[in-house]
Amino acid sequence: TMTSPSQKPLKVGIIGFGPFAQFLVKTMIKQGHSIKATSRSDYTQLCTHLGISFFRDMKAFLESNNEVILLCTSILSLSQVINSLPFNCLTQPTLFVDVLSVKEYPRDLMLQVLPQDSDVLCTHPMFGPESGKDGWNDLTFMYEKVRITNEATCSSFLQIFATEGCKMMEMTCEEHDKLSARSQFLTHTIGRVLSEMEVEPTPIDTKGFQKLVQVKESTSRDSFDLFSGLFIHNRFAKQQLMNIELAVETIKQQLVKRMNEQVDPSI
Amino acid sequence: TMTSPSQKPLKVGIIGFGPFAQFLVKTMIKQGHSIKATSRSDYTQLCTHLGISFFRDMKAFLESNNEVILLCTSILSLSQVINSLPFNCLTQPTLFVDVLSVKEYPRDLMLQVLPQDSDVLCTHPMFGPESGKDGWNDLTFMYEKVRITNEATCSSFLQIFATEGCKMMEMTCEEHDKLSARSQFLTHTIGRVLSEMEVEPTPIDTKGFQKLVQVKESTSRDSFDLFSGLFIHNRFAKQQLMNIELAVETIKQQLVKRMNEQVDPSI
Ligand SMILES: NC(=O)c1ccc[n+]([C@@H]2O[C@H](COP(=O)([O-])OP(=O)(O)OC[C@H]3O[C@@H](n4cnc5c(N)ncnc54)[C@H](OP(=O)(O)O)[C@@H]3O)[C@@H](O)[C@H]2O)c1
Ligand SMILES: NC(=O)c1ccc[n+]([C@@H]2O[C@H](COP(=O)([O-])OP(=O)(O)OC[C@H]3O[C@@H](n4cnc5c(N)ncnc54)[C@H](OP(=O)(O)O)[C@@H]3O)[C@@H](O)[C@H]2O)c1
Repeated sequence: TMTSPSQKPLKVGIIGFGPFAQFLVKTMIKQGHSIKATSRSDYTQLCTHLGISFFRDMKAFLESNNEVILLCTSILSLSQVINSLPFNCLTQPTLFVDVLSVKEYPRDLMLQVLPQDSDVLCTHPMFGPESGKDGWNDLTFMYEKVRITNEATCSSFLQIFATEGCKMMEMTCEEHDKLSARSQFLTHTIGRVLSEMEVEPTPIDTKGFQKLVQVKESTSRDSFDLFSGLFIHNRFAKQQLMNIELAVETIKQQLVKRMNEQVDPSI
Repeated sequence: TMTSPSQKPLKVGIIGFGPFAQFLVKTMIKQGHSIKATSRSDYTQLCTHLGISFFRDMKAFLESNNEVILLCTSILSLSQVINSLPFNCLTQPTLFVDVLSVKEYPRDLMLQVLPQDSDVLCTHPMFGPESGKDGWNDLTFMYEKVRITNEATCSSFLQIFATEGCKMMEMTCEEHDKLSARSQFLTHTIGRVLSEMEVEPTPIDTKGFQKLVQVKESTSRDSFDLFSGLFIHNRFAKQQLMNIELAVETIKQQLVKRMNEQVDPSI
């Protein structure tokens, strides 16, 4: 294994084995951790191929002695998934970690639903299959230690990302949601707008336009569930959507005003 | 001089010595061409510094034996500038070239106003002080030979860009305006919208968001005259602005619909 000597392999169970979990797991396997997975859909074949165990049965999964349980479901399905977990099957106090792209919402859900003796770490790797395809060096990893009693396990988990060179950014879930409404949700919205307009490269692209085409392509590769999760479960997103509409209107008015001045310079 | 042996120095007169002309002229001087300039404002000092002649008097400028006259005024001022030129002062049939970021409009103006014996070349270097700051290699140069009798002079002028490694893209002014409404005007509009929203880098930027910040910064460096020129004098831009508004509205509706389904999954 490629685990550094200081790093002991972690037993990580993953709930929700969609595109993002499949992306994360490649690096965890490379680092030598012991991975188990479960999901709504059947990923037995893929997991066999990856050399990890896939559980169709949630009870058996929870009984399988995970030190960490990583929640990788869509934002929209977390509530349903977490509320249906048979926690009595857990064999030990467990560190629950989520990677959802919004943070106050899973924090509140986990604090409500998880057993009192389980630890809670909220995280958001600010990258994905596209931006992280050449490694995670210099990419940002946001986290908040929401309820940590077992510091050792928490620290081992964070090491997975620190070892790869991620910029480890500790901040509150609230601060994350404020900032990411202004950055990530805005980016996804612009990307979806460009996609809706069927923006395509032309023979006379400027550098700036090429960047917009890249934004369109990378954001429309993510699921619509992910995008709508950013909107529905980040309380700062609605204001941001209104800000976009308002700004488009303002720019339009500025253009129309300038056009009228041109037609009649006496204005 | 750095002119290649096959390239004879051209006598180029520039009308409109704003940011873009100042950017272009650096390369023309490097190539060894003989440059004269005139503008609404006084650039005598800057031109002395650059080692080229600046004319405050338009008559003297037109009498100064230019083989090429390069129109670098703002889109909005071209009509006024070109209509006030004392063409009788020209000492020879001249190649008029414009670099405006819209193309049908200057083509029509030049064909209406310029002397019959002058040649007309419409061009649009698809780059500027920002994207072209490390050289012009692989950047696109669009042109249409609208009325060329003196092929040699036209070809010498195009060589200025070809020599630097530009992708030389011959297309009609109409085709240019159709494509650039969908690309450059869209980019400037998004950039201005982001600027209006006061978008700023955050500690948790994604790669996609960083691209949007770059688009904001590079487009808001250009004058508002340039941006409004793209809108007012490209007949395909109005539709594009409506498309943006419509797409924002569509995306909003999709989000609201998904949110309502979440609240009431029976929908
Ligand atoms: N993609 C990224 O770049 C990225 C980056 C950072 C964080 N994230 C976060 O990572 C999580 C996963 O993202 P993703 O890109 O893989 O796509 P996603 O569409 O957000 O989530 C897909 C996952 O959700 C599960 N799921 C969806 N609906 C479900 C339901 N009704 N019941 C049970 N499970 C359900 C899917 O299970 P099945 O596959 O079994 O159907 C799959 O595992 C999200 O919370 C996202 O915000 C993603
Ligand atoms: N910037 C770019 O990246 C870029 C790229 C490709 C093409 N272009 C085109 O190049 C041209 C110049 O662009 P720019 O970036 O330099 O900025 P601009 O704001 O579009 O144009 C500035 C120029 O227009 C002149 N001007 C403005 N109003 C005038 C008036 N009422 N009467 C006479 N002259 C007037 C200015 O003269 P004074 O300076 O003397 O006041 C200056 O020379 C534009 O047509 C633009 O579309 C620009």
